[in-house]
Amino acid sequence: MSVTLFDKILDRSQIISGKDLETRYHHIWHMDQPLNAMCLLMPASTQEVSSIMKICFKNDLPVVVHGGLTNLVGSTETTGNEVVISTERLNKIEEIDSSSRTMTVQSGVILEHVHDAAASVDLLFPLNFGARGSAQIGGVISTNAGGLRVLKYGMTRQLILGIEAVTADGTIISSMKKIIKDNSAYDIKQLFIGSEGTLGIVTKAILKLEEAPSSRNAAYIGFNHYDNVVSFLKYIDAHLAGKLSGFELIWRNSYEQMTSVSHAVRPPLPYDYNYYVLIEALGSHPQNDHAEFQILLEKALEKEQILDAVMAQSPSDVEWFFRIREDVNNLVDFMKHDQHFDISLPIPLIGDYIGDRYESLAQIEGVEQIYAFGHVADGNIHFMIGKTHLGLDLKKEIDHCIYDGLKEIGGSVSAEHGIGTHKKDYLNLCRTPEEIILMKSLKSSMDPKGLLNPGKIF
Amino acid sequence: MSVTLFDKILDRSQIISGKDLETRYHHIWHMDQPLNAMCLLMPASTQEVSSIMKICFKNDLPVVVHGGLTNLVGSTETTGNEVVISTERLNKIEEIDSSSRTMTVQSGVILEHVHDAAASVDLLFPLNFGARGSAQIGGVISTNAGGLRVLKYGMTRQLILGIEAVTADGTIISSMKKIIKDNSAYDIKQLFIGSEGTLGIVTKAILKLEEAPSSRNAAYIGFNHYDNVVSFLKYIDAHLAGKLSGFELIWRNSYEQMTSVSHAVRPPLPYDYNYYVLIEALGSHPQNDHAEFQILLEKALEKEQILDAVMAQSPSDVEWFFRIREDVNNLVDFMKHDQHFDISLPIPLIGDYIGDRYESLAQIEGVEQIYAFGHVADGNIHFMIGKTHLGLDLKKEIDHCIYDGLKEIGGSVSAEHGIGTHKKDYLNLCRTPEEIILMKSLKSSMDPKGLLNPGKIF
Repeated sequence: MSVTLFDKILDRSQIISGKDLETRYHHIWHMDQPLNAMCLLMPASTQEVSSIMKICFKNDLPVVVHGGLTNLVGSTETTGNEVVISTERLNKIEEIDSSSRTMTVQSGVILEHVHDAAASVDLLFPLNFGARGSAQIGGVISTNAGGLRVLKYGMTRQLILGIEAVTADGTIISSMKKIIKDNSAYDIKQLFIGSEGTLGIVTKAILKLEEAPSSRNAAYIGFNHYDNVVSFLKYIDAHLAGKLSGFELIWRNSYEQMTSVSHAVRPPLPYDYNYYVLIEALGSHPQNDHAEFQILLEKALEKEQILDAVMAQSPSDVEWFFRIREDVNNLVDFMKHDQHFDISLPIPLIGDYIGDRYESLAQIEGVEQIYAFGHVADGNIHFMIGKTHLGLDLKKEIDHCIYDGLKEIGGSVSAEHGIGTHKKDYLNLCRTPEEIILMKSLKSSMDPKGLLNPGKIF
Repeated sequence: MSVTLFDKILDRSQIISGKDLETRYHHIWHMDQPLNAMCLLMPASTQEVSSIMKICFKNDLPVVVHGGLTNLVGSTETTGNEVVISTERLNKIEEIDSSSRTMTVQSGVILEHVHDAAASVDLLFPLNFGARGSAQIGGVISTNAGGLRVLKYGMTRQLILGIEAVTADGTIISSMKKIIKDNSAYDIKQLFIGSEGTLGIVTKAILKLEEAPSSRNAAYIGFNHYDNVVSFLKYIDAHLAGKLSGFELIWRNSYEQMTSVSHAVRPPLPYDYNYYVLIEALGSHPQNDHAEFQILLEKALEKEQILDAVMAQSPSDVEWFFRIREDVNNLVDFMKHDQHFDISLPIPLIGDYIGDRYESLAQIEGVEQIYAFGHVADGNIHFMIGKTHLGLDLKKEIDHCIYDGLKEIGGSVSAEHGIGTHKKDYLNLCRTPEEIILMKSLKSSMDPKGLLNPGKIF
């Protein structure tokens, strides 16, 4: 019955319901599981999203937004009674302004299309991660996505100048400005960034672009002591003066596994070290930058801050180096079942904390593989755990092993993936009761009926 | 009577009331005007601020926070019945962690002390502006201050990792983490940054530090056409690859005035051009960086993108170059009365918009001087207007002349100073009714009695 509510505001081709929902799914990894929802709507404008929300608000219909469906914490899950709003027809790049260095996009534009469009005018949208070919800007904003170049360019929050969003009652909040600074009262776009679709539906954004770099250097570096990883980070960051764009740490056993499955990911350095760091620098003088990078590594070798280093000598080397780090399937493919983590903690504490987790996890019956790696310059470590079965007790034991120590050291259960449904039970480990009460009061102030992405975060 | 309310929670030495208030003032420029308030309290801990707010909440007492009192939009003004909380005893730097590259400070620490403490361990807190010797971190956070190096390092919002704040009912919201990434639910610290003390009182913060640069280059450059300013910005930013830290534009008549009052601010370039740009680059290779900078300028001269350029040849030259730009008194001292502006607009539109304002302002009777300059790479222009009298009609005529066109082009009446009391009438020029309603609902959700900095922003 309820689907007919939307007939007046949308074309029939924009509404999917009944048996047709079986062609849809809630996550890109679960295409075989038919979507469980009241209907799926495909608005083509902010106005249509607003009209949908007005009907949902009047009729108390819960709403879940679907973008690229690559979220890793269950934020796009449905239970069956929701109106799903797909942003797939909000897919236009409306403008690229190369003088303002901005791109105006609808929220259904795929991240990789943003990259390509920026590159076509010698600009860069620096946000980058593995799922770029599917992830949409709306989802990127709603999770405050991070990725591989946060060190130099920041997370999504730092790359968004303007936002248009629709709130629970259908109000359009439009703040589509190309300006870099705006201290005219509260910066309300921050409410929509990283709130996982629980405070509003982003329909458009103005992205901040950067001038495209013309040189890219990369190297793998070997260490035995974590303290040297930290001192090298400070050294290389200071001496590259704004060019350091990536500083990825891989623990030895992860490196061995990542580099042993095929020639395409052969090891750039031998298996002699406890820690492997992949660094990247983006500059504007191909020849000078290569030489400078090499001299900095040589000096670090001389003073024994680093034990070994190999520089990429060509663009294909750079690709090879990053393929090792990016293709997480090389870790997961050999697992019976996997469980992944995305924790954040102070940089100097990472070595001990992760080392301790390796030891404790190894004691858990049912744990078969333990791989750690991550964006260490951002204090963000990913764990991939292989296990024998999907039992809830085992899952929780692994969760607690990794999460429980974070509270004491001021860490977070989510550096970049968000809370969604998967991490709700652990939110209190990294947020105080007072913070959670304040968050819930914001939620009930902006979405008093609790219609937007219900059951997520809290 | 009411002052006795605080006797139980504070020492007598922390309370100023009655005639003693005459030694206090509401703004550093108005030390001759005695403070008009119920009392002034000097808490020395977050807990004491919380206790004060619990009493104020119970007794419906409005609260205004006083830090360095350098705010430019009237945000520290009082009307007489307020409890003023001074942060002057919250003045401890609690920790510098050079591996995490963080500094933990109480909110009354003066910005310049932060700079010095960071420099003592070869780190940099990049936020920098003229009032650094008086402005306190709490005020910096509450206004989301910008300044001279936003281009490279961002505004305050990008430099704050953790915050502790007290809300209207005395609740302590503590999120003091050193982590760079934290997507565990809503980023509520954003609520306290830039909200001008209307949503909570910041008592502590964890600041993000950067590795200190070891080279600093600067140059003045002359242009006749604004389009070339924009193309040169893109050129130099692309080729300095992360090192460009300042790009300040000064209109010809402002440059003439700024450089004519003493030998200390003598003109680096002759008075031959319509626009003067001061650029700064921060790097890590003193010799290479100087040579690279010079070559980039020579190439721009060759292709006639720029008409003239003079590079600083020594640290004292750099100081000289910046003294010209920073000493706004050289503009104001010759005015009978002054009115200043802090607008934000898309970069490519600045030349025409400011040019038109020059023409329109010159038509207004009572306007004697018109000076424009600003952080053009951030789209942020300051106007200093000299006028014959303080009449309200003249003030409004000047306001409207500068502000009225901003709505159409997506600008803002405040790039970095905030709204306070001075710009309340113009908030609707850069915010939609829906945005303002949402802001007000946030305010009433977090401060239902309207006790925090009443009368500011709205």
